[in-house]
Amino acid sequence: MPYVSIRVAGKLTKEQKQQIAQGVTDVIVKATSKPKEAVLLFIDEESPVNIAKGGVLIEDM
Amino acid sequence: MPYVSIRVAGKLTKEQKQQIAQGVTDVIVKATSKPKEAVLLFIDEESPVNIAKGGVLIEDM
Amino acid sequence: MPYVSIRVAGKLTKEQKQQIAQGVTDVIVKATSKPKEAVLLFIDEESPVNIAKGGVLIEDM
Amino acid sequence: MPYVSIRVAGKLTKEQKQQIAQGVTDVIVKATSKPKEAVLLFIDEESPVNIAKGGVLIEDM
Amino acid sequence: MPYVSIRVAGKLTKEQKQQIAQGVTDVIVKATSKPKEAVLLFIDEESPVNIAKGGVLIEDM
Amino acid sequence: MPYVSIRVAGKLTKEQKQQIAQGVTDVIVKATSKPKEAVLLFIDEESPVNIAKGGVLIEDM
Repeated sequence: MPYVSIRVAGKLTKEQKQQIAQGVTDVIVKATSKPKEAVLLFIDEESPVNIAKGGVLIEDM
Repeated sequence: MPYVSIRVAGKLTKEQKQQIAQGVTDVIVKATSKPKEAVLLFIDEESPVNIAKGGVLIEDM
Repeated sequence: MPYVSIRVAGKLTKEQKQQIAQGVTDVIVKATSKPKEAVLLFIDEESPVNIAKGGVLIEDM
Repeated sequence: MPYVSIRVAGKLTKEQKQQIAQGVTDVIVKATSKPKEAVLLFIDEESPVNIAKGGVLIEDM
Repeated sequence: MPYVSIRVAGKLTKEQKQQIAQGVTDVIVKATSKPKEAVLLFIDEESPVNIAKGGVLIEDM
Repeated sequence: MPYVSIRVAGKLTKEQKQQIAQGVTDVIVKATSKPKEAVLLFIDEESPVNIAKGGVLIEDM
């Protein structure tokens, strides 16, 4: 049941997603002792035109 | 004003989305007595390569 | 793995939460044929001072 | 660190996104005195077939 | 139907929430021409011990 | 700018939150090469009465 949502700018390779899924899950399981199979994780690849930092679109930075 | 966000792996047909929208809204209205038109619901179809369970991408299961 | 997040204004009784959890899960399972035990659902009871509709806090309506 | 997530039905132009990013950030900075560069904002353009109001898909309205 | 979720560290006064609700709603309505009463906005006041930047809890900064 | 939201059932100690914040941030930075200070992470401790799995509240399990 730990739920994780990760939002990043731009595209990730499948290997990067596997690395994130495995690594983040392991950290949470180790810290919380929750069962590994209970961890549900979503990755969102966001377009830089849809993210802003300090009021400026990342695409415009 | 009840807000509902539903994330599922893979694609849904329009009929499935209609079924979910209507059914989930009815359940919430019945349970909470909130006005039906106030219920705002979002459906996200997620790629199996962007979801992991127990550290493993659903696409790899 | 269907993930559901439901945000409502004010407090709900445990019975209302049970009703929502069961009813919403059944609707999603029926519509998507996903396994019932895979449905993960979160309910958030929000204070009316933290929600606004049309720019007005619900507490001020 | 203020995090803002904005979900709208349909497509927005880049100019609309710039207007939203800048305007929303300015409002939050003015109201909270948080540093402008700390404000992180995401915009999601949702398909009308994936949003429902009162149990009816916006596409069907 | 624009949905806005705003997460900030620490407590806000009611006046700050009114300012945010009104200001953010006006920006979105002006940019998108969506009807004002359709804008649904949630504010979450998060404890600094529950937020981290660069791996460090804000409470520890 | 990677944004991470983590929802868990029950309370965590500050040490567990530090462990999660540091560990998850390191995994994401290593996998994506994004700058460490750009990673913004939120932890939500959810009451077991507000989470359901398979239609059953975790509190009732």
